[in-house]
Amino acid sequence: MSGSTFGRFLRLTTYGESHGEAIGGILDGFPSNFEINFEELQTFVDKRKPGQSKLVTQRKESDTIQVLSGVFEGKSLGTPIAFMVPNEDAKSKDYSNNKDVYRPSHADLNYQQKYGIRDHRGGGRSSARETVARVIAGGIAKQFLESEGIFIQAFVDQIGSIRLEKKDKLDFLYNESSIEASLVRCPEPQTSSLMEELVLKTKKDGDSIGGAIFCRIKGVPFGLGEPVFDKLHAKLGQALFSINAVKGVEFGSGFSGIEMLGSQHNDLFVEGGKTESNNSGGIIGGISNSMPIDFRVAFKPVATIAKPQQTINSELKEDTIQGKGRHDACVVPRAVPIVEAMAALTILDFYLMYKIYK
Amino acid sequence: MSGSTFGRFLRLTTYGESHGEAIGGILDGFPSNFEINFEELQTFVDKRKPGQSKLVTQRKESDTIQVLSGVFEGKSLGTPIAFMVPNEDAKSKDYSNNKDVYRPSHADLNYQQKYGIRDHRGGGRSSARETVARVIAGGIAKQFLESEGIFIQAFVDQIGSIRLEKKDKLDFLYNESSIEASLVRCPEPQTSSLMEELVLKTKKDGDSIGGAIFCRIKGVPFGLGEPVFDKLHAKLGQALFSINAVKGVEFGSGFSGIEMLGSQHNDLFVEGGKTESNNSGGIIGGISNSMPIDFRVAFKPVATIAKPQQTINSELKEDTIQGKGRHDACVVPRAVPIVEAMAALTILDFYLMYKIYK
Amino acid sequence: MSGSTFGRFLRLTTYGESHGEAIGGILDGFPSNFEINFEELQTFVDKRKPGQSKLVTQRKESDTIQVLSGVFEGKSLGTPIAFMVPNEDAKSKDYSNNKDVYRPSHADLNYQQKYGIRDHRGGGRSSARETVARVIAGGIAKQFLESEGIFIQAFVDQIGSIRLEKKDKLDFLYNESSIEASLVRCPEPQTSSLMEELVLKTKKDGDSIGGAIFCRIKGVPFGLGEPVFDKLHAKLGQALFSINAVKGVEFGSGFSGIEMLGSQHNDLFVEGGKTESNNSGGIIGGISNSMPIDFRVAFKPVATIAKPQQTINSELKEDTIQGKGRHDACVVPRAVPIVEAMAALTILDFYLMYKIYK
Amino acid sequence: MSGSTFGRFLRLTTYGESHGEAIGGILDGFPSNFEINFEELQTFVDKRKPGQSKLVTQRKESDTIQVLSGVFEGKSLGTPIAFMVPNEDAKSKDYSNNKDVYRPSHADLNYQQKYGIRDHRGGGRSSARETVARVIAGGIAKQFLESEGIFIQAFVDQIGSIRLEKKDKLDFLYNESSIEASLVRCPEPQTSSLMEELVLKTKKDGDSIGGAIFCRIKGVPFGLGEPVFDKLHAKLGQALFSINAVKGVEFGSGFSGIEMLGSQHNDLFVEGGKTESNNSGGIIGGISNSMPIDFRVAFKPVATIAKPQQTINSELKEDTIQGKGRHDACVVPRAVPIVEAMAALTILDFYLMYKIYK
Repeated sequence: MSGSTFGRFLRLTTYGESHGEAIGGILDGFPSNFEINFEELQTFVDKRKPGQSKLVTQRKESDTIQVLSGVFEGKSLGTPIAFMVPNEDAKSKDYSNNKDVYRPSHADLNYQQKYGIRDHRGGGRSSARETVARVIAGGIAKQFLESEGIFIQAFVDQIGSIRLEKKDKLDFLYNESSIEASLVRCPEPQTSSLMEELVLKTKKDGDSIGGAIFCRIKGVPFGLGEPVFDKLHAKLGQALFSINAVKGVEFGSGFSGIEMLGSQHNDLFVEGGKTESNNSGGIIGGISNSMPIDFRVAFKPVATIAKPQQTINSELKEDTIQGKGRHDACVVPRAVPIVEAMAALTILDFYLMYKIYK
Repeated sequence: MSGSTFGRFLRLTTYGESHGEAIGGILDGFPSNFEINFEELQTFVDKRKPGQSKLVTQRKESDTIQVLSGVFEGKSLGTPIAFMVPNEDAKSKDYSNNKDVYRPSHADLNYQQKYGIRDHRGGGRSSARETVARVIAGGIAKQFLESEGIFIQAFVDQIGSIRLEKKDKLDFLYNESSIEASLVRCPEPQTSSLMEELVLKTKKDGDSIGGAIFCRIKGVPFGLGEPVFDKLHAKLGQALFSINAVKGVEFGSGFSGIEMLGSQHNDLFVEGGKTESNNSGGIIGGISNSMPIDFRVAFKPVATIAKPQQTINSELKEDTIQGKGRHDACVVPRAVPIVEAMAALTILDFYLMYKIYK
Repeated sequence: MSGSTFGRFLRLTTYGESHGEAIGGILDGFPSNFEINFEELQTFVDKRKPGQSKLVTQRKESDTIQVLSGVFEGKSLGTPIAFMVPNEDAKSKDYSNNKDVYRPSHADLNYQQKYGIRDHRGGGRSSARETVARVIAGGIAKQFLESEGIFIQAFVDQIGSIRLEKKDKLDFLYNESSIEASLVRCPEPQTSSLMEELVLKTKKDGDSIGGAIFCRIKGVPFGLGEPVFDKLHAKLGQALFSINAVKGVEFGSGFSGIEMLGSQHNDLFVEGGKTESNNSGGIIGGISNSMPIDFRVAFKPVATIAKPQQTINSELKEDTIQGKGRHDACVVPRAVPIVEAMAALTILDFYLMYKIYK
Repeated sequence: MSGSTFGRFLRLTTYGESHGEAIGGILDGFPSNFEINFEELQTFVDKRKPGQSKLVTQRKESDTIQVLSGVFEGKSLGTPIAFMVPNEDAKSKDYSNNKDVYRPSHADLNYQQKYGIRDHRGGGRSSARETVARVIAGGIAKQFLESEGIFIQAFVDQIGSIRLEKKDKLDFLYNESSIEASLVRCPEPQTSSLMEELVLKTKKDGDSIGGAIFCRIKGVPFGLGEPVFDKLHAKLGQALFSINAVKGVEFGSGFSGIEMLGSQHNDLFVEGGKTESNNSGGIIGGISNSMPIDFRVAFKPVATIAKPQQTINSELKEDTIQGKGRHDACVVPRAVPIVEAMAALTILDFYLMYKIYK
């Protein structure tokens, strides 16, 4: 495996198996002399944590951030910031049944085939637990961007077939408190209630359900993005698809743009360079155009379910498996900070490169 | 601009403005001793060419490939393969009106803001003409993959609201002749006819229309992909979003996976390691699982339309613009080889890295 | 700072200030299923440790390696291997006098100018303590290379004007025990004695002295190296110059080649492809030629001396400074494993890429 | 081969075999809106050209630069600058004898072993002809640096055992006209004469001779360099070792630092942050310290000589070879612009990244 580093100037490298000693990472290229608010960072990281509500898994992981380098008297040194969280609540015995069978739609078999070995105590490196390192690094990046007037806000847009209406999005957007007031991180109370019901029902059925996250980034100036291959949305696309369970990404009009005419889709300029509409989603030609960057991310239902499933064993012969661990019926509420973190890492990387031109 | 290189071991670097001397590129890291079929390559590149039918723009660009290095007596040397196509039919006068006004939903203003200068004779570096270099390099990569048993086939899946039914896809897939028999590169004749009508009507109206391309890659073995950031679909995502006009990308179940239950979505294993269904789209945990890799790409309607549009001029004051050049009402048929090319470059890069483990 | 990652396929990313919590790193891209001998690794890392003899600094750093990920039941998983050593013996008070003055020929002022902040308790990120992470990662790489028949052996070739004669080199080379029997890691006993005397005298004088390390790599097959910029010796050059205090690097004939004629310098082939002489140092055209890779690295005298020195303070006004910490009079004996480690990381990176061709 | 790209933000990718269609490259990441002086650039490139004097090979290569993209109305667009020079004077027949024998200390056998194929009409990709692309790109970078007050000047410091005395260096440095007045590019007339005699004698003997180039870079501010692996001199080291025939590189005191005491070697600060001496060669801790950056590069004698030599043929059996082509007895005078070019590319890359901090 050699894909544990993300970014060109701001680079995050992560490590850690779900049931190993620790999960952590190194954030290199972060600007110096920036005062990191570690309390705020812990709050941000805790949004990803299991066990936050009755809706999600009850595993207890304190996810307490330990910083090992790159920070001196509260400020960034400009040197690599290393951080880690120990794996506290790894009950290996819950997972011992995974040794000889491969869980459907999990990466167990793929890792075994690729590497000829795997840490069968859990998902290992393919576990979503890996994302805690991204959220820590992304949370630091997010704080820096905020100090420069760039704000990232994601929320749950859809669970199953229950989707937030577009008009609601605009009303509730950037309302952190309305999002956090919702157990499913959907800022509109009625939609949130319907989503909660659906998740509880799904959980009761021993099943899981998919969902989508919408994200808006405000305050990005003209000029971020490096055509032709490192277009801003191309690297955001890589960043978002690298998150566990993501099956689709769209910017601005996205898939609905397929059915539109050019005369409808074109974002007409108004004096000064802003546009009336924003079907482009804040990026044209791979370069930010100072409008809000809007995108939407589709998550499949998580693969672990309580129901018994047909599968194969280590001899690749047929077998059955029954989920025993404590897992989420719907992962998207916990994925909100992960989406924000990957967006923050990507945007800050381009923001630093953009300074070269100024 | 510093994003003109794609790939990690197999690296394509491209150059060229739409109205400059030439478009070209360097493909570095390509295996040695491979006999390139240049006739087949030219045919592949010609699929992207304007002026193929009444449906598309009538510009004449011969796009004759010139190879400058890396090939000796018909075989690859293992050294960088440099190639170029001169810009023959660049009628600068058609575009002189672009100097002082910014075309809506084009990148003119973004380039001007980012670089303080632009080649106003056309889209410059943001023109889709840039993609000819990708198709040449990708066509070479595609030939190599075919010699290893890996096949990539894309076709037009949707134009406007006319979409190929899923069952048809499976019937027609990998039928190169049925795809090429269609003016819109949709392999099902009746759907193709409806699409053609829609494109002609849109062209007559001086408008443009969006569309989607479906792509399947067969023969990929277990193990391509480098988690956690260089997951196979994450890099494919970057590759596809880097294509002009792409607004959305989905793998396997994609956005429809949002509404599915885990018990429906999970791909159950059968003896030997294959799966019954393929909602995963051939990739789990960012690693290929030996099933076909399926993805779908959404294209917005092209921004250039014949209708007059409100815009702003170089003082950022309001102005109007009317398209005069010869442009496509629907770009997706010509984008089929571009999608295949970017897929080929990505897959071959990972395929080479994968050999390290064998 | 954004230069903490080395390597293309095998990538080491390091972190840590000399007086922070810990020094550590992540080794990504290491092959799976390799059994790491941690006892042997600790022995290798301990060669770099201060306090080994009367000749070197008496700081006590246990440098006990903690592995946090990437290893399961003693074998590499193919996932990133994270490791760390806590900073145990950091007596900050010894260094408090560095806060307001800049030490001559140290990087204190440079860091302050570049980042506007520094961890003044010591050299911070510029301290040679940083290299412990390299030695751990390089030691793992070295074990893997040995399992493939590639051996790396460095020793002290020169201290001050005392230099090992060339004929001695050939006799003593690859004699691990004769090297380790010497307090200065020079395998020839008489030369070693003279060197020891010189170091002790220098230490007594409160001064420091330079030196050189010679390194030979045996068993490298034809074909490692990626021209034209990633030539094997070019990346080795980067690797070696990245080590603290290195001022010069030469391969094969090196600087003595300046005075040679082509008819003397050319390495004539013998049947089979080997060469009679090895002025090329095992690399021609940036590609290994199956002969031993030979290079020599020049180290300046360490900047910290006990004598008082003229300097400037934080207002850039003149001041004086007197070394108080415990430092080495000659760093080269402890640099032997660092040179081997950087060579191992570089060679293994190319060795993995080379497998793509096989 | 996959090492044809150099640089992190400013990236040069090159291509071309000595006897193929053309040599060229793509310079990506170059700042926009810079007016390139193409006449001056051609003059710079011509310094590398064969046939300049009786001392060097009489091949006629006009090396006329063709620019294909990235420049509009004389100014850089910020997009990739593509350029090429056709191979005009490639008399393949001169080299036909290379098909079945491997030239000693050339890379013929290495390429054959690595790739299983080679362009035997000449050195192919390993020919020094490849460097013309570097000189073009580096010449552009050099012009930009000069506009920012950074000047790079190299000259011949040594040929065989004739070496310019240190005091002379300081007198003649940065005297472009005195360097160009010398047929061997050594600015001190008497030393130059001795060198010329030596080269002519060597040429007459059908032999070749090594040499060294000294280079100074003035005007570099504090702060260039990205520790710990991308230290400024580490990347300069890679850049310089990537030049054909380079066997050694040293910065500041270099190899002479081995014999120095710390109290001699340390560069004492004077008020304001400059230093009295410059043994550090302008770089401490891998970061520029605003003093001149000084380095010296050792070149082996070129491998092609007129004398008959023992060698092996394509069956790896013993054979003999006699040089027939027109080659240089001493390559170093022509290597002066190559050294400057690689230095310029490296420094500008770091200079652009350094702007992120400002």
